[in-house]
Amino acid sequence: MRILGIDPGYATVGYGLVDYCRCKFNPVAFGAVTTPAGIPFPRRLGDIYRDMISIIEKYKPDEMAVERLYFNTNTTTAIDVAQARGVIVLAAENSLLPVFEYTPLQVKQAITGYGRAEKRQVMEMVKNILALERVPKPDDTADALALAVCHAHCSGTTYSRLYRGAVK
Amino acid sequence: MRILGIDPGYATVGYGLVDYCRCKFNPVAFGAVTTPAGIPFPRRLGDIYRDMISIIEKYKPDEMAVERLYFNTNTTTAIDVAQARGVIVLAAENSLLPVFEYTPLQVKQAITGYGRAEKRQVMEMVKNILALERVPKPDDTADALALAVCHAHCSGTTYSRLYRGAVK
Repeated sequence: MRILGIDPGYATVGYGLVDYCRCKFNPVAFGAVTTPAGIPFPRRLGDIYRDMISIIEKYKPDEMAVERLYFNTNTTTAIDVAQARGVIVLAAENSLLPVFEYTPLQVKQAITGYGRAEKRQVMEMVKNILALERVPKPDDTADALALAVCHAHCSGTTYSRLYRGAVK
Repeated sequence: MRILGIDPGYATVGYGLVDYCRCKFNPVAFGAVTTPAGIPFPRRLGDIYRDMISIIEKYKPDEMAVERLYFNTNTTTAIDVAQARGVIVLAAENSLLPVFEYTPLQVKQAITGYGRAEKRQVMEMVKNILALERVPKPDDTADALALAVCHAHCSGTTYSRLYRGAVK
């Protein structure tokens, strides 16, 4: 199974593609889609959508795992991260790619066995699990790979949550 | 000038198309795009995107006016409204339609001359300005028409804000 992990954002979208077969991992590609701050926000969304479609067409993942959003203090940023996430999920939907979502706590739990693990620990574990020479940069890329590994570990369990969103 | 006003949402997207020429208004079409609660959220985003593209292709507006989002208490709903808004803005961007945004206060101010006007007053004014027989239903549709009228009144003034989004 090929998994596309996504750390959503509007300035930087981390992505990581991982093959998972018989409990073995093989990293396929990873990096970050970035958009410049100086251009209008609608164009940033357009760039993210186009790049996401390109990545999905090029690497043909079977499933996508994306971080679930929570809000804390900086709500202006949070609104724009959520708008970008909507566009990323749309790119998956329009490519017929099933979307799963995980909380940061689930990701930490799946990778280190401890929900309150430090960010650095999670990244070191991802590096080891994928047999990478170093922790990928930027952090968004490492986070995206962590989501892919989390989904591989959780797939088929009750933690694996197909993204249905809010039901009113 | 033909203006598409949008009240963003994921269950209901209000839309209203208005022609504005030499200080005269002509309502062209209005209504609401709705998505059922029972389907996965990515599909709801897919439906909204497709319907928005259809509306833009059919009515060929010159500019879009969309409500600016703020967060209050229900953050789960707010995240999903923001995701839907991202998809709506993307539909405009991919149709080369310029996007403007207004706060609820700006809309009330532009329509009633009073930023703290009651919702009902705003709707009655929209009905009168557009010479409609009754206030359109649902409220999201009336709100969308209010945004279109607000943009017509504000276009070319300092209140008219091309949507640039957060700049980090």
